Amino acid sequence: MSAPGILVPRLIERKRDGAALTPGEWQALIQGYVTGDIPDYQMAALAMAVVFRGLEADELVALTAAMRTSGDQFALADLGRPRVDKHSIGGVGDKTSLLLAPMLAVLDVAVPMISGRGLGHTGGTLDKLEAIPGFDTRLTLHAARAQLERIGAVMVGQTPELVPADRKLYALRDVTGTVESIPLIAASIMSKKLAESLTGLVLDIKTGSGAFIRDPGQSLVLAETMIRLGEASGCRTVGLLTAMDRPLGIACGNAIEVEEAIAGLRGAGPPDLMEVTYALGAEMLLASSLEADRDQARRKVEAVVASGAALERFGRLIEAQGGDPRVIDDPARLPQAPVVVDLLADRSGVVTSADPRAIGHAIVALGGGRSRTEDAVDPAVGFRVYVKPGDGVDRGARLATVLARSADQVPAALAALSAALPIGESAAPLPLVSHRVSRDGVIPLT
Amino acid sequence: MSAPGILVPRLIERKRDGAALTPGEWQALIQGYVTGDIPDYQMAALAMAVVFRGLEADELVALTAAMRTSGDQFALADLGRPRVDKHSIGGVGDKTSLLLAPMLAVLDVAVPMISGRGLGHTGGTLDKLEAIPGFDTRLTLHAARAQLERIGAVMVGQTPELVPADRKLYALRDVTGTVESIPLIAASIMSKKLAESLTGLVLDIKTGSGAFIRDPGQSLVLAETMIRLGEASGCRTVGLLTAMDRPLGIACGNAIEVEEAIAGLRGAGPPDLMEVTYALGAEMLLASSLEADRDQARRKVEAVVASGAALERFGRLIEAQGGDPRVIDDPARLPQAPVVVDLLADRSGVVTSADPRAIGHAIVALGGGRSRTEDAVDPAVGFRVYVKPGDGVDRGARLATVLARSADQVPAALAALSAALPIGESAAPLPLVSHRVSRDGVIPLT
Repeated sequence: MSAPGILVPRLIERKRDGAALTPGEWQALIQGYVTGDIPDYQMAALAMAVVFRGLEADELVALTAAMRTSGDQFALADLGRPRVDKHSIGGVGDKTSLLLAPMLAVLDVAVPMISGRGLGHTGGTLDKLEAIPGFDTRLTLHAARAQLERIGAVMVGQTPELVPADRKLYALRDVTGTVESIPLIAASIMSKKLAESLTGLVLDIKTGSGAFIRDPGQSLVLAETMIRLGEASGCRTVGLLTAMDRPLGIACGNAIEVEEAIAGLRGAGPPDLMEVTYALGAEMLLASSLEADRDQARRKVEAVVASGAALERFGRLIEAQGGDPRVIDDPARLPQAPVVVDLLADRSGVVTSADPRAIGHAIVALGGGRSRTEDAVDPAVGFRVYVKPGDGVDRGARLATVLARSADQVPAALAALSAALPIGESAAPLPLVSHRVSRDGVIPLT
Repeated sequence: MSAPGILVPRLIERKRDGAALTPGEWQALIQGYVTGDIPDYQMAALAMAVVFRGLEADELVALTAAMRTSGDQFALADLGRPRVDKHSIGGVGDKTSLLLAPMLAVLDVAVPMISGRGLGHTGGTLDKLEAIPGFDTRLTLHAARAQLERIGAVMVGQTPELVPADRKLYALRDVTGTVESIPLIAASIMSKKLAESLTGLVLDIKTGSGAFIRDPGQSLVLAETMIRLGEASGCRTVGLLTAMDRPLGIACGNAIEVEEAIAGLRGAGPPDLMEVTYALGAEMLLASSLEADRDQARRKVEAVVASGAALERFGRLIEAQGGDPRVIDDPARLPQAPVVVDLLADRSGVVTSADPRAIGHAIVALGGGRSRTEDAVDPAVGFRVYVKPGDGVDRGARLATVLARSADQVPAALAALSAALPIGESAAPLPLVSHRVSRDGVIPLT
């Protein structure tokens, strides 16, 4: 019932009653949980007490450090290059990681990107990459490091040995109603990111109806919490608030997002995707300390796209991870949906919204996402959404395209898309990139 | 991860966010927990959410009913007699159950007493009864009913089949910091009491430093909660607030409490024990509806002691449950402590307090109680505490007696007793029986 030297029920009671546990107590709790000395039921009660009581700053640093060191780490301090990653807090149509990793690699920033899978309405980078025939996201840390030295970027999934405390605790929180806790979310994300030995981290903080956290105030609190955690570990951490009241770009689905990312690396992506990618890329370059001037950083990330160097690097990355690099020049080699049907506007007017949550759930219904972690994903299906809130459309104009596995999926998909893209009088979309958040505070960018 | 038809994480989240679950949801939760479909970790998280959010009245009734019906019940509705029990919320030196069961049986009230064991500083009726050589508290429900028909009273432990939801949930709460919840405590007690098919229940609500719940306001809230639960099930439920700022009676320890209970059944017990016993007994007789007049009820319970009928019935009860009835006339047949040492007053003055919690923990240290449920208990050891707060004593007067298993236990026991019985200038003891609590409210009795 208890790890050596600590009485777990007494610790739960203290947290329940609003007291702070010591760093040593958090270390013992996490260590005991990973070894199995502390059972799930005690950790579940403690997690619920944290949902209600929160964590003090020292507790959060100690919990995150205990989780980060609970297994192997991606040791890169001797790499001789700055290590910078980008983390997005959920989203639909968000394929920026696929562009940013090769772009920053060209600029001599190592990008040790350990990504996740889609769940609920949000997509996941691993699912997108695995739409590329042969692409392997399950590299050992040793192989990942070798690729990082050779190519400058690696895009893999979390191994069982990396941050096992988070794997175990997240699975428990998922079934015990203890996901919605800012400190527990922050510790979960940052324990994994800091296990990548990062010198810099850029957070893409989604706001709007499609964001993982719907309340913009809470999103900002989460960002500030993660920034404090990063800076406390010597990792330069900044965040950009970006709009998730509509999908990012046009493509929403695994294979078509890879295709759109490739187009973006040619400089030919949708304007909103390019703008968010360049903004995040400039922040990553600044966070690497290889560039100090903001305008210069922006010019550099634009230049590696314009020169074709970033696209060439993405091809090398695909090849290094077992994927078919011919998808770069021939996107038809990506999985194709057999059934393609357009949604047309049934009236003229203004697109009033494009709810990413509804669109994301409709992709799950098509088989392109997951409602449970054990679900398989169909890489070919999804939507192309051509319109943004505020766009004027004429009756009969093409609003979106459904890419389905079979014709019987189409009516429900069209109905869901139609409901997610209402046409009315006016719209009030969020600004695309609105604020920059850092240890110095929140600065408006618009 | 879930019982058929309910999504447990969603229910946990709703409770966490302050909503009420439906009676059907509580039924499904408890049923799923008992069958094992709902794992400990989900119930632990839910229990912690209840600690913070509480339960609405309808939820508490539904939870208690679901627990009560989670296994076998002590079906007695066809007994042809009222069934009344007494429940005490903790205490030290409290042997009233041993007197009340035979007293009320003589008065044609069936007393189906399912009792517990001591834990922490409080003693337990089962441990006291098992100090009687041969006494068996593990009767089947069938045998218990037969004895109830024959003798009118039975004193047994909870069987594995009776209220299994409470057994499982209590063990979980004990190790997850979720004991301290008024609704969960009330549901735990009342699910077991109502499984006895009671028509009446009298609660002995201990107040003062030795009470299970130290805050008198919270004790009263618990009593009122249990009264509402009892009345909602058609069980007349009343409570008396009694003093637990000192032990009840003189004897504190298993065998010597049996001896004192026998003396009490002869009418020769300590005055405070007799007063609390008669007050509770009169309430039990009123709750049975066999007597409506309070003074008359009091005279009747005193009369069954004065006539010797209650003592004779206790002898029959002991014999029926396999115990040696000769202890009635020859208490030396009870286990005897080999080492007996008096504590004398080291100064003259007034006994300022007699903290039952400190005395109870000192009994545990002697081996006469439990700090963990799996501990064995030494029936012979304990203390006789002769003084009450407010008593004047001369230097050299006998304050108490230590009954120990070995001489090396004596110094620590004397030190603990001495600290628990300080001598000073004055004392402010609580009134012995201060209030009556019923569905009509709280009425002062002093």
